[in-house]
Amino acid sequence: MMKIDVMTLFPEMFAPLNSSIMGKAQTDQILTFETHNFRDYAVNKHGHVDDTPYGGGAGMLLRIEPLVNQLEAIPGHDQARVILVDPSGQPFTQKKAHEWSQEEHLIFICGHYEGYDARIENYVTDQVSIGDYVLTNGELPAMVMIDATVRLLPQVLGNSESIVDESHQHNLLEYPQYTRPQNFRGDEVPEILLSGNHGKIEAWRKQEALKRTLLRRPDLIEKLQLSPSEIHYLTDN
Amino acid sequence: MMKIDVMTLFPEMFAPLNSSIMGKAQTDQILTFETHNFRDYAVNKHGHVDDTPYGGGAGMLLRIEPLVNQLEAIPGHDQARVILVDPSGQPFTQKKAHEWSQEEHLIFICGHYEGYDARIENYVTDQVSIGDYVLTNGELPAMVMIDATVRLLPQVLGNSESIVDESHQHNLLEYPQYTRPQNFRGDEVPEILLSGNHGKIEAWRKQEALKRTLLRRPDLIEKLQLSPSEIHYLTDN
Repeated sequence: MMKIDVMTLFPEMFAPLNSSIMGKAQTDQILTFETHNFRDYAVNKHGHVDDTPYGGGAGMLLRIEPLVNQLEAIPGHDQARVILVDPSGQPFTQKKAHEWSQEEHLIFICGHYEGYDARIENYVTDQVSIGDYVLTNGELPAMVMIDATVRLLPQVLGNSESIVDESHQHNLLEYPQYTRPQNFRGDEVPEILLSGNHGKIEAWRKQEALKRTLLRRPDLIEKLQLSPSEIHYLTDN
Repeated sequence: MMKIDVMTLFPEMFAPLNSSIMGKAQTDQILTFETHNFRDYAVNKHGHVDDTPYGGGAGMLLRIEPLVNQLEAIPGHDQARVILVDPSGQPFTQKKAHEWSQEEHLIFICGHYEGYDARIENYVTDQVSIGDYVLTNGELPAMVMIDATVRLLPQVLGNSESIVDESHQHNLLEYPQYTRPQNFRGDEVPEILLSGNHGKIEAWRKQEALKRTLLRRPDLIEKLQLSPSEIHYLTDN
């Protein structure tokens, strides 16, 4: 069973993890999930956890004592992967999700529209960002990373859903898919998909996946090792 | 006032948008937010909204009728920015957040561990992904994009917090920051930050930001137009 602890000033934001697949993973005892409000370790009786930056500058910073004291109160913290949700961190990737899904215990530390005192970096194993955009909180990114990680645990997804995984592992976007009705307001499903010719369907799908990736994510195409026939597809169509 | 509608099978997952800054934006009438369960437009009385893919393959796809019929029932949908939350979409960026924050009406369409019938693409203005990792749902990414967009609306953040924005706009990670106590278990705040010399502090911060970016995000450094003195900093320290 995987254990995930989250340190946050807004525990109620984690409600979505009780829904759907993440909720079921907890009911099925594949996952235990717990939040910890580090305001319990505030530096004074007014509940303060932040202060102004040394050297001047706008905004407030989370002080180190509430964070470290809360972290050290979590059983097993010294064996855990301790992840700082941090816009200045390394990018979260599918590879990291796979890596973390092998761990027994993850602890996420979430800031909330404030930076951290940089000395917290001495107490964590990972500093990770989910993308190059600015958010008001670390809670949503933590849930994103938890969802990506937990879905990879054995028995969380059925076999069918887990195949969707493939696309980002192979640096190719997924091909377009269609279901009933065959005609929607005059917009038809591509004929080849109705042909029953599995070889041709597979070739068409690969070609469409390449085209789509080239159009939307040329940065991914550069990472691909394309075969001569794939290059032919791309340049000839 | 900005209006945001979300189409989802799991409306309860959007609870975090009632907390903290996003909750306050609603109370302050800067934002109206509404969820719509497109199961209300299911294709039969059993509530089905999905079906198997033409041409074979694992998994199920969301059918187009429930999506388009729900979309068309949202007042003002034809003037709105309609955003499909889609792992095969273009990357969400801070630039997109700024662009969307200028709009009056955003509609997000969220899948949930299933793909979409590709014909939905004819009914949306944007197809966007928050990163190259696989999630069980489109709800968390929608909340991430809403948070990044709404925080840019006038009056949502105070002046001080909004400055944090700078880092990802200029392709540079933020420099390390420190607050009290000056000494934490022997770990001291860098002396220069206590010097009161604002010119030196600024130079140190810029250097640290560059170093940190070089170390963690060399991909961002490539996008920078570095001055000779910045290159000197990077190679000399």
